[in-house]
Amino acid sequence: MSKLLENVVGEFAKLPGVGRRTALRLALHLLRQDVEDVDLFAGAVYQFRRDIRWCRQCRNLSDDELCPICSDPKRDKTTICVVEQVGDLISIENTRQYNGLYHVLGGVISPIQGISPSDLHVDLLTDNIRRLGVREVILALGTTIEGETTSYYLTKKLQPLGVVVSVISRGIGFGDELEYADELTITHALRNRRPL
Amino acid sequence: MSKLLENVVGEFAKLPGVGRRTALRLALHLLRQDVEDVDLFAGAVYQFRRDIRWCRQCRNLSDDELCPICSDPKRDKTTICVVEQVGDLISIENTRQYNGLYHVLGGVISPIQGISPSDLHVDLLTDNIRRLGVREVILALGTTIEGETTSYYLTKKLQPLGVVVSVISRGIGFGDELEYADELTITHALRNRRPL
Repeated sequence: MSKLLENVVGEFAKLPGVGRRTALRLALHLLRQDVEDVDLFAGAVYQFRRDIRWCRQCRNLSDDELCPICSDPKRDKTTICVVEQVGDLISIENTRQYNGLYHVLGGVISPIQGISPSDLHVDLLTDNIRRLGVREVILALGTTIEGETTSYYLTKKLQPLGVVVSVISRGIGFGDELEYADELTITHALRNRRPL
Repeated sequence: MSKLLENVVGEFAKLPGVGRRTALRLALHLLRQDVEDVDLFAGAVYQFRRDIRWCRQCRNLSDDELCPICSDPKRDKTTICVVEQVGDLISIENTRQYNGLYHVLGGVISPIQGISPSDLHVDLLTDNIRRLGVREVILALGTTIEGETTSYYLTKKLQPLGVVVSVISRGIGFGDELEYADELTITHALRNRRPL
């Protein structure tokens, strides 16, 4: 095989979820694109990894010191939503239902993955709460054991600051089938039922 | 969203089979890699599109004028296998059962896609047959109507050159279930049965 082809197939195949067959298909797809368009692709990858920064206030991905959300004067600075990673922040932003700030932990407490509380920038979060006069912190972490442990840890840390700590609701998702939901989710959904 | 992130997500999402959600996952994956490794990825994409060539003898992808197969003195130059595209050539090479040369058409005759016989480098193929003293041409095209039409066209073109034109066998693939095979395949497999 051509070394140039072998090289690009090998690189694509390192991406998560991309096998060698898909990698080859992607490489051959690039051949059908204009050289300039493929340059734009390669350049976007190169620049992103080189120049991306973490917002110094919330640890969101950012082009500048402050991310677009933290530097937006129209966002409500008295509410902070805590998420595990940037992908979660984007999912929440896509709903257009939340107008506060964020805190991106960058992970959850996990002894196995070697992530301890000191890796989650909690001091930055408590500083922001005091400095911005935050009134509510919404915990929007996963329902894994690690996520729950982290939520518990953060609650203990934040409640002494006199801030309301809330957690997003758990239950059966829209479009999910009750039949396939696990027992813990159904138990929780039953207990937290609301009058119509 | 950060413009650098938006940019790389948009570029990934242009790849076939990659939606915005997957594109975001790929972008965040790059962030967890070393800068140098991401540079290698971007560089491989850039170089591949810029520097790849088509073998002047068989139209395989190549780093030089002749591809590794055409320039290999150990390959049998009296047999040419005709395939639609480079991916097919690689699939055949992976079997390690074929030691001849190839001719990569770059497509099959398709009025809808605007591919006519003149796009398939058939003159190059007939030149090679004469120049190299080829004795057999194996047609290994798809079983679509376009593939069959192209096989028929090539047979008519090549038989006058005194070369044996053969076609790879059709039938039930290993691992395929007879129950799910189409009628044409089963009919063909029955007619072309062989004594055990």
